[in-house]
Amino acid sequence: MILMWEPLVRAALLEDLGRAGDITTEACVPSSAQGDGVLAARVAGTIAGLDVAALSFRLIDTDVRFEPVLADGDQVEAGGAVARVRGPARGMLTAERVALNFLGHLSGIATATRFIADAIGHTACRVVCTRKTTPGLRALEKYAVRCGGGLNHRFGLDDAMLIKDNHIALAGGIAAALQRARARAGHLVKIEIEVDNLAQLEEVFVAGGADAVLLDNMGPDMLRQAVALVAGRAVTEASGGITPATAANIAETGVDLISVGWLTHSVRTLDIGLDF
Amino acid sequence: MILMWEPLVRAALLEDLGRAGDITTEACVPSSAQGDGVLAARVAGTIAGLDVAALSFRLIDTDVRFEPVLADGDQVEAGGAVARVRGPARGMLTAERVALNFLGHLSGIATATRFIADAIGHTACRVVCTRKTTPGLRALEKYAVRCGGGLNHRFGLDDAMLIKDNHIALAGGIAAALQRARARAGHLVKIEIEVDNLAQLEEVFVAGGADAVLLDNMGPDMLRQAVALVAGRAVTEASGGITPATAANIAETGVDLISVGWLTHSVRTLDIGLDF
Amino acid sequence: MILMWEPLVRAALLEDLGRAGDITTEACVPSSAQGDGVLAARVAGTIAGLDVAALSFRLIDTDVRFEPVLADGDQVEAGGAVARVRGPARGMLTAERVALNFLGHLSGIATATRFIADAIGHTACRVVCTRKTTPGLRALEKYAVRCGGGLNHRFGLDDAMLIKDNHIALAGGIAAALQRARARAGHLVKIEIEVDNLAQLEEVFVAGGADAVLLDNMGPDMLRQAVALVAGRAVTEASGGITPATAANIAETGVDLISVGWLTHSVRTLDIGLDF
Amino acid sequence: MILMWEPLVRAALLEDLGRAGDITTEACVPSSAQGDGVLAARVAGTIAGLDVAALSFRLIDTDVRFEPVLADGDQVEAGGAVARVRGPARGMLTAERVALNFLGHLSGIATATRFIADAIGHTACRVVCTRKTTPGLRALEKYAVRCGGGLNHRFGLDDAMLIKDNHIALAGGIAAALQRARARAGHLVKIEIEVDNLAQLEEVFVAGGADAVLLDNMGPDMLRQAVALVAGRAVTEASGGITPATAANIAETGVDLISVGWLTHSVRTLDIGLDF
Amino acid sequence: MILMWEPLVRAALLEDLGRAGDITTEACVPSSAQGDGVLAARVAGTIAGLDVAALSFRLIDTDVRFEPVLADGDQVEAGGAVARVRGPARGMLTAERVALNFLGHLSGIATATRFIADAIGHTACRVVCTRKTTPGLRALEKYAVRCGGGLNHRFGLDDAMLIKDNHIALAGGIAAALQRARARAGHLVKIEIEVDNLAQLEEVFVAGGADAVLLDNMGPDMLRQAVALVAGRAVTEASGGITPATAANIAETGVDLISVGWLTHSVRTLDIGLDF
Amino acid sequence: MILMWEPLVRAALLEDLGRAGDITTEACVPSSAQGDGVLAARVAGTIAGLDVAALSFRLIDTDVRFEPVLADGDQVEAGGAVARVRGPARGMLTAERVALNFLGHLSGIATATRFIADAIGHTACRVVCTRKTTPGLRALEKYAVRCGGGLNHRFGLDDAMLIKDNHIALAGGIAAALQRARARAGHLVKIEIEVDNLAQLEEVFVAGGADAVLLDNMGPDMLRQAVALVAGRAVTEASGGITPATAANIAETGVDLISVGWLTHSVRTLDIGLDF
Repeated sequence: MILMWEPLVRAALLEDLGRAGDITTEACVPSSAQGDGVLAARVAGTIAGLDVAALSFRLIDTDVRFEPVLADGDQVEAGGAVARVRGPARGMLTAERVALNFLGHLSGIATATRFIADAIGHTACRVVCTRKTTPGLRALEKYAVRCGGGLNHRFGLDDAMLIKDNHIALAGGIAAALQRARARAGHLVKIEIEVDNLAQLEEVFVAGGADAVLLDNMGPDMLRQAVALVAGRAVTEASGGITPATAANIAETGVDLISVGWLTHSVRTLDIGLDF
Repeated sequence: MILMWEPLVRAALLEDLGRAGDITTEACVPSSAQGDGVLAARVAGTIAGLDVAALSFRLIDTDVRFEPVLADGDQVEAGGAVARVRGPARGMLTAERVALNFLGHLSGIATATRFIADAIGHTACRVVCTRKTTPGLRALEKYAVRCGGGLNHRFGLDDAMLIKDNHIALAGGIAAALQRARARAGHLVKIEIEVDNLAQLEEVFVAGGADAVLLDNMGPDMLRQAVALVAGRAVTEASGGITPATAANIAETGVDLISVGWLTHSVRTLDIGLDF
Repeated sequence: MILMWEPLVRAALLEDLGRAGDITTEACVPSSAQGDGVLAARVAGTIAGLDVAALSFRLIDTDVRFEPVLADGDQVEAGGAVARVRGPARGMLTAERVALNFLGHLSGIATATRFIADAIGHTACRVVCTRKTTPGLRALEKYAVRCGGGLNHRFGLDDAMLIKDNHIALAGGIAAALQRARARAGHLVKIEIEVDNLAQLEEVFVAGGADAVLLDNMGPDMLRQAVALVAGRAVTEASGGITPATAANIAETGVDLISVGWLTHSVRTLDIGLDF
Repeated sequence: MILMWEPLVRAALLEDLGRAGDITTEACVPSSAQGDGVLAARVAGTIAGLDVAALSFRLIDTDVRFEPVLADGDQVEAGGAVARVRGPARGMLTAERVALNFLGHLSGIATATRFIADAIGHTACRVVCTRKTTPGLRALEKYAVRCGGGLNHRFGLDDAMLIKDNHIALAGGIAAALQRARARAGHLVKIEIEVDNLAQLEEVFVAGGADAVLLDNMGPDMLRQAVALVAGRAVTEASGGITPATAANIAETGVDLISVGWLTHSVRTLDIGLDF
Repeated sequence: MILMWEPLVRAALLEDLGRAGDITTEACVPSSAQGDGVLAARVAGTIAGLDVAALSFRLIDTDVRFEPVLADGDQVEAGGAVARVRGPARGMLTAERVALNFLGHLSGIATATRFIADAIGHTACRVVCTRKTTPGLRALEKYAVRCGGGLNHRFGLDDAMLIKDNHIALAGGIAAALQRARARAGHLVKIEIEVDNLAQLEEVFVAGGADAVLLDNMGPDMLRQAVALVAGRAVTEASGGITPATAANIAETGVDLISVGWLTHSVRTLDIGLDF
Repeated sequence: MILMWEPLVRAALLEDLGRAGDITTEACVPSSAQGDGVLAARVAGTIAGLDVAALSFRLIDTDVRFEPVLADGDQVEAGGAVARVRGPARGMLTAERVALNFLGHLSGIATATRFIADAIGHTACRVVCTRKTTPGLRALEKYAVRCGGGLNHRFGLDDAMLIKDNHIALAGGIAAALQRARARAGHLVKIEIEVDNLAQLEEVFVAGGADAVLLDNMGPDMLRQAVALVAGRAVTEASGGITPATAANIAETGVDLISVGWLTHSVRTLDIGLDF
């Protein structure tokens, strides 16, 4: 949705242009020069952010044409073309870095998500992101997670309730917390609650249950027991220290979801460059 | 400089609060509840972003007190306290994620920078960042690089000239590009030029030289020759694919600077949590 | 949450101040003049918006003290005091209209909601608002609904799914729409679907059900049948043309919720004035 | 003037889209689906806000065509078409609610204004609005008043002086207030003064008069005397508790203007829907 | 009104700070250093903008104390102190240029206005500004005109009508233009009309007159005739090419106002410096 | 770069439109009226700001065509055409003042710069601007200086270091200040230092030198000695009280640059009008 991304792209371009603009390009490149380039991936990965990259060029110069070769969510091989960019060379050079910063960051998230999604693809388990996102980029980053085959957790503090350990303690226990939450939640607001052990998990269902339970930092054995205990009465989400190496093991316990903070908080950019 | 960071922190908080605010905390936590917590690092690293974290809490509730234990640039051990946070529990919980998202991201950059800075500490070489930053966070990220012992490269397209391969090609060669650049640059604008080989490097000095030369993707041998060729007439910067493993080797060639994109484009958050 | 309301209050004050500010007060009232006034309701109602009113005065002059007599959600009698306002007379007069515009509008919503909530108070049914809100004021208006004893429906297009007639038609039927929705929804996103008759309602449950069903424009008899048919498998919401006169009848059918657009789209301000 | 409304429409759309956008439409409606719909009034009324409604659709998708059937200020019958909307179905559904929220709100104001304007149409009296407007929407609401045949009072605190009871008291009386006001007012700033009785009114003219007098809360008899006393030396405005039932009586007293706060502070939306 | 100026001061500070902030001060000045300075005028003039200057320092560092020696509108002699500034030296140095840019610019306007006001002080004529202001600073500049003893003309296109030659031509003549204007104007909107000669002026009064007449580019003789012709039926404003040398002559013709564009479009800053 | 100027132009137009827009034009000019006009200079000068003027018209009405006759940096004779403007008359009239305010202001700066540039054209010396700019317009004003043949000094506090007398004093002397500055500066940040006399100048080079030296308030003789002393080791900039009358004398001393604050802080608008 361009309307939603435009303020971010505009701000990123102005951040790079500063007060004097692209003085190198303005000095060195004749205004009549035309360019014809390809956005190419240096390594394999999953693409996300083509609309944002296109918008970066368009906001600098509407005469720059951005022709996607792939679509968001597609796989690219090392050396593969992502998009073709043509038009006034000045505009292409001025917008290049911002376009690539967005595209590399979002594709990096999509690639990592796809990696995990594939690793657990033999199970019914899905990978979800968290609120550990880069300040200002949450919606874009969550979009990139979807491009990589993941699902989204909450977008913020307001679209669902997630009752954590501190909430429970301050509310006076699991039952009290759930009761307070239900009284406040609208009918379209789901409630998830975090538990650290099976005793707490039982307490949740004694207290009436929740839409989802976050099983925090449990090993595979305990997760299996937890899934059995829940018995389909709630969505089960495993969380805490899940790595590419452990994801499959965790997923095989039968949990519905694994949530992985580093998809968005420790992004490794997908190296994409613009070749003239 | 709080005036500069405040719009970012405000935007990040509003991004998390959405339209309905922190409904879980509002439901579960009595408004009178007080909290007393410690921001503690789960792993060792270098801290950056304490002012931004403090501001996150203060903008949510001015009654939350944030007392730093460390200062930006300090090392923290695994388990070490970074700051103490006390006051109304609701405000602490509502601001927690945004404060940690900033602090973890910036400390992650500082930690990576410190790692490289230490790795090349036996040389006179310094590590610098690039413009491959997260959209919207460039100034904060460059600050974090300084906290980690690095120096800053350009902040944007406008505060110095960096003549790259495409500029050279479109200007009609190195000499033409340098001449055009000098004619446009104000007296407080430095000019750096990228070269791929020694022939180009010689051409730069035949054409009158530059303030700095970016030696792109050269191996240690060629870098040594380049440093000898430059002979102090310009700042030398090695760039391209430098990893923690190769940084020392590159630095030992005698270059003044190594620039490392992944300090900012592939950040690994420093895991910091809030313990009540 | 002051951080969330402040941009709105600031914008409203600047809208009223224009470019030249409050020229009447500046001309007529000595800068040293002090005022002491009471915000008093001209008619009985339910109060909402005291924090926003207080902020209106504070942003104009931090020396104006705003002392609430009541709290949001409280009932006020005709003539009853809502808050006391004291301090520099200029600031009081300049901020008065904006403070009252907010307070009257929000209290008007709370009052209407309270009226309906009381009318259906003998049932388990609750009243909820819609997305038919005043552009720019949605979060505040939904807060006012809660002050009046109502619950909130969706805050926007993104925090839950509401599948309406057009979505069903374009998706290719109820089953297809529900299947598409479930595939896209994260685990904390609820799905509600609109039906016009009992056949559609049955189709919903044949297709696997939904978290909530919106029973659109049904009379009491059909609503009763619908409630029986749903049999607790989903939240039931009656919608369409519900008036103060019909609310009780509708609520008595056993539906969980009645949604009422005019709570927010046809607000009657609660008349509150500032008496010196 | 699109430049003036665009920030409001953009903000309203972003308020509705939130962070994740229109997830229901994105899930249920194929991106290739086309729609063809009519904005139709459910009840009779006066239209205002077509440009704003059109902009709502255009900002979401420039391929959605909005073809007005009527113009602002036109009357629509119950069931009558207001505009035709065609194009990508997703864009139509996503923008629908915001477009209708604006159009219904503004048409509601125009309709109420037209009702009063017609009720006093047999006199020379005109109906005017006040500053009791919805925060953020003042200029749009005042435009809607004009569409309904009304005139505008002040747009803010700065474009004219309106000396009220508190100003008079704090200035030290009517003569002092008028003298202070004239000394501060530029030559294109009009001065109006509020009076509660005929003695005050006489005092105004003894003190040199004003451009307009606001006759506050006077009954028809006193208004007639006031009009006679003024004798064309100032514009006369009756204010305070004027209802549809009393408007004609008040207008027949010979006052030039009646001002009616509920035109904008207690809007009843004009029910307009989008039929595919 | 601080609420109104704050966005401008904030923007000006951020414009100066850029992305990296005040690197010179940060490098050279110890954070503990304290400063004690005086804002002193290098030449005599009239002061305007003290609140804005104070705000510039306060937004950078709340610990910097700004103590005005003079008030806006006061005369300062060459070398005279305007304000004392004390506190952390870093904050003083960082805010200095922005504070002085505002203060010098506004005091320059006040000084020029005062010069003209004094030159015509022996007449009843007053000097007014125009809409030929610096983009973004209109309200501040008009405030500065008042500080210098001038009156304000329109603040924008919307707070009064000024019918110029092109409006008259396109409306079909003076009478048509005035009639159209009156039909559109609210009762608190004044109408001024521009005339180039006495025939046009007569036409204005034949057509019912206006609140003010702008006598454009008339010499003293014609102005005298114009004043006689108007005979108090409208405010008379002389405009066009009025210089300090001709102002008195023009004012002595009996016109009520002279309007002078260069008060705001050709500002000569008042030289004020910060002496430690 | 339109992306950079657009927020300023948009803000300036909204500042002029206020809340009610151009009521005079709306009242007097039929919506179908077409206009055909020429932006003509009343006096000779150098043009700057055509893109900004064009944008002013385009943002009001995209149907207004702006056809430049000259380009930025061109000389215009008195009476000469600058651009042709055609299209809907309403849009032309509404945008006219803002377009001219920008164009006159920026052309005024370019004209003054060109005057000094020509006065020193027989030397190698160049004229540069300062940070004494109009709040909010710095980048545009610095662009205008370049249009007039000048060079730009720093754009802000962050793109280069300028060590002034207060920095030196607080750092503990010239050597200490330079050392601190070099330790903080990135490799693309130049350092300039202000000196008042030759002894300080020598001290600078004893302390290792700087990229540039600002020779403050020196007479021609001392400047000559300073230039000799520097002997090409740094850029030399003369500053302080340079007037059109003294510029040539100063330039002939051999300094590289003269910096002139009044180019931007005491702008005399270039009188340009729109003739239909």
